[in-house]
Amino acid sequence: MQFLKQLWNVRAFRAGVPAIMANLRLPFDPVEHGLDKDFRLTKFTQLKGCGCKVPQKELLKLLEVLRGHEVGGDSTAVGVEEVGTGTGDGTLAQLPHFGIGNDCCIIPLQYGGLYLVESTDFFYPLVDDPYVMGQIACANVLSDLYAAGVVHCDNMLMLLGVPQKFSDKERETVIPLMMKGFKDNADKAGTKVRGGQTVINPWLTIGGVGTSVCMPNQIVYPDNAVVGDVLVLTKPLGTQVAVNAYQWMSNPDDWKKISAVVTKEEVETAYEEAKYHMADLNVEAARLMSHYGAHGATDVTGFGILGHAENLAQIQRNEVKFAIHNLPIISKMPSVAKSGGGMFKLLQGYSAETSGGLLIAFPREQAADFCKEMEKLGKTAWIIGIVEKGDRTAQIIDKPRIIEAPNRTT
Amino acid sequence: MQFLKQLWNVRAFRAGVPAIMANLRLPFDPVEHGLDKDFRLTKFTQLKGCGCKVPQKELLKLLEVLRGHEVGGDSTAVGVEEVGTGTGDGTLAQLPHFGIGNDCCIIPLQYGGLYLVESTDFFYPLVDDPYVMGQIACANVLSDLYAAGVVHCDNMLMLLGVPQKFSDKERETVIPLMMKGFKDNADKAGTKVRGGQTVINPWLTIGGVGTSVCMPNQIVYPDNAVVGDVLVLTKPLGTQVAVNAYQWMSNPDDWKKISAVVTKEEVETAYEEAKYHMADLNVEAARLMSHYGAHGATDVTGFGILGHAENLAQIQRNEVKFAIHNLPIISKMPSVAKSGGGMFKLLQGYSAETSGGLLIAFPREQAADFCKEMEKLGKTAWIIGIVEKGDRTAQIIDKPRIIEAPNRTT
Repeated sequence: MQFLKQLWNVRAFRAGVPAIMANLRLPFDPVEHGLDKDFRLTKFTQLKGCGCKVPQKELLKLLEVLRGHEVGGDSTAVGVEEVGTGTGDGTLAQLPHFGIGNDCCIIPLQYGGLYLVESTDFFYPLVDDPYVMGQIACANVLSDLYAAGVVHCDNMLMLLGVPQKFSDKERETVIPLMMKGFKDNADKAGTKVRGGQTVINPWLTIGGVGTSVCMPNQIVYPDNAVVGDVLVLTKPLGTQVAVNAYQWMSNPDDWKKISAVVTKEEVETAYEEAKYHMADLNVEAARLMSHYGAHGATDVTGFGILGHAENLAQIQRNEVKFAIHNLPIISKMPSVAKSGGGMFKLLQGYSAETSGGLLIAFPREQAADFCKEMEKLGKTAWIIGIVEKGDRTAQIIDKPRIIEAPNRTT
Repeated sequence: MQFLKQLWNVRAFRAGVPAIMANLRLPFDPVEHGLDKDFRLTKFTQLKGCGCKVPQKELLKLLEVLRGHEVGGDSTAVGVEEVGTGTGDGTLAQLPHFGIGNDCCIIPLQYGGLYLVESTDFFYPLVDDPYVMGQIACANVLSDLYAAGVVHCDNMLMLLGVPQKFSDKERETVIPLMMKGFKDNADKAGTKVRGGQTVINPWLTIGGVGTSVCMPNQIVYPDNAVVGDVLVLTKPLGTQVAVNAYQWMSNPDDWKKISAVVTKEEVETAYEEAKYHMADLNVEAARLMSHYGAHGATDVTGFGILGHAENLAQIQRNEVKFAIHNLPIISKMPSVAKSGGGMFKLLQGYSAETSGGLLIAFPREQAADFCKEMEKLGKTAWIIGIVEKGDRTAQIIDKPRIIEAPNRTT
C-alpha cells in the first residue's frame, strides 16, 4: 500500500495539479478504515465484473422462453402502431428481438408519444476500492442508456448483495463506501438513486437499474448503420486483463506468467487506468452521438468488443458488416494478454470488459469531428473500423493495429 | 414424490374439477425432467425468499449514505414543484424518506404530469418447483406497484443468478422453467419482460424490476390513513413457516421439533397453500383499492406483517397508530411456529413473508365492501386491525385472534 501511495503522490505531482483536480484518488487503504490490512473486496467473489455473465450462446438459448415478449413481436405489445413519431416505431416493429439479448429496452408508452428506456446490470467486485467499485457499477448501468443516446436518466435503483462472510465492521465500512461511489456517479450523471434491493449473498454484488422516459427524438436507434460508416470506440479495451494482472502481482505463481513482459509499476499503472475508465461515465459520448448523427451504438461489456460488435451487426436494418481494424488497449495489456496463457482473448476481441466504452457507427466525416470534440472534453475516442456491405456479422481483420492508449492517470 | 402426486390427484378429484381449472399444478418431479431424483431447487441457497433481506435496522443505517437522493428531499429533485397535480406532489414533498427504505418509488416526470412508479426485488428459491418459483418472483416484484394502487405495469426486467454448481442439464432444464413461470405471471398481469441481467452466482437468484408510467390519479398514496380506518390484509401469513416445515419433513431431527403438533399431510397442504398464495398476483386488490378509497397500503414481505405495518405507520401524515387484532395464518402454521424452537416470530409479527398480501388502510364501511368484493373474485381478505390516534407506530395487541385461513388448494 505504501508503494502505491507514493506512486500516487508522484503522479499527482507530475500532473502539476492538486490530487482532487487530477481526478485521482488515494488508493483504498483498508487499515485507514479500521479493516484488516489483508481485506480485499475482490476476495468476496470468484468471478469479476462483467466477466460473470452467462456466456452469450447459452444466454440466447435460455432467453428463447421469453419469445413473444419482444417489443413489437406480437399484437399485444403496447401501442407500437399508435404512439411515437415514425422512425422509432418502424425500427421497433422491424426488430423482433430488440430489447431481449440487449440490456437496454426501448418501449413506447401509452402517453404523449413518450418512450421508456430501461436497463439493468449487476455483477461482482473487480477492484479493491469500494468507492471506485460503486462508481463503476453506476457507470456501467447508465452506459446502456447512453448507448441509446439517452442522456437524461429519471431514476436509478441500486441492487446490492452483502457478503454472508462480512463482519459487522466490514459491512458497516465497505457497503456505505460502495453506495457513496454509486451515488456520486449518479449525481454526476444528473440522476438519483431512489430505491433498490439489498440481500445477503455469498458474493458481494453491486448493480442497478437506470430508467428514462423520453421523446423518441432523444433516442439514437442502434440499427441504422450504412455502408461507408466508420466505427468509433470511446474507451480503451483491456480492463479485465488489467485487473487480473494486478491480482496476479500478489501471487508468485501467477506473476511468473507475465513478469517477463511487464513490470509491477506498469501493472499498477494499467490498473489505475482500468479503474479510471471503468468509473468514467459515457455521458459525453452519448450527448455528442445525436449531434454528430450516429447511426447506432452499443456499449462494450461482458462479451468483449467483438461479441458486442456482432450483436450490433446482427440487428442492423441494412445489409452491412463491421470490420474492426484497430484495437485501442490499455498500455502493456496486449503483451500481458498474450503471455497470460491464452486465458484472455483480448486480441481476438472476446476479453470481457466492464463498464467499457461506446462502440458507435458514424458517417465518416462526423466520426472525425466527434473524436476531436471528445478530445477537447478530455475524453478518449478512436476510429476502429468500417461498415461494409455484408451479412450482419462483425470481425477483427487479420493483424489489427494495436493502439496503446495514452495514460490518463499519470 | 409419488405420495405428493397421489395427494394432488385426490385433491383435484375432491374439488370436482379438472386439474387445470382447479388452478393446481402437478408437483415438480425432477426425474420427469431428466434430473436426478434428489434435485431440489432450495438446495441452491442457504437463505430463503424474502428471508434473505438485510435486517431492517441495519439496512436503514446503510441507506443513510443515500440521504439527499430522496424524492423531494432536496432542491435538485426532478421537478417536484413543477409537475403533477396537487396531492401527489404535496405528499411527496412531505415524505422526505419516501422512496428509500420502501421498495417502490414514485417520481414525478418532466412530461405531462406523469409519474414513474418503479420497484425491484430479487431473492433465493424457497420452493422446489422452478415454474412456481418464477411465478412467485414475478408476483413479488409487481406487488410493490400494486401496493401503490398501480395496476398497469409498462415493463419488467428479469434478474437471474444461475448457480455455479448447476450442471448443463440442470441449467437448461430449470432456468427456462423458472423464466416461464415469471413470464406467465407477467402475462397474467398484462405486462411483458423485455430485458434483464443473467449472471453466474453461488446461489440461485431470481427477481425483477417493474416499471409503470402513470397519471397521479392512478396512484394510491400510502400516507393518508385517518383515525377510524381499519386495516385489511389480502393473503394469509405463515409462508416462511410453511416452506421451512416442508423442508423439515425430510430431516428427522428437524421434523422432531414439530411432529407433535402437525402431520406430514398437513404440512404438505400448508406448503401447497403457501405456494398458491405466493404465486398469486395482488392485482385484484390493487384494482379495488382505488375504487374503495384506500388511504394507503404496503405489501408484506421480508420484515413480516408487523415490520411492514411499522414502516407504513411511520410515514403517515396524520398522528395515527396501527393496532393489529387478528392474524390470518395458513392452517396449522401457528402451532408449527410455536413448536419451531422460537426461530419463527410469526405470532410476534416478524416472520418473513414472501410475496405476501397487501396491508391496506380503508375507511371502515369501504373495508367490508372491499372484502366482500375480493371474496366474489375468489380472493382472500380479512379485516385485521384498526387505525387509532397515536405516534406513527404499529403493534399487535396482546392475545390477537388467530384466524386459520381456509385452504384454497384442497
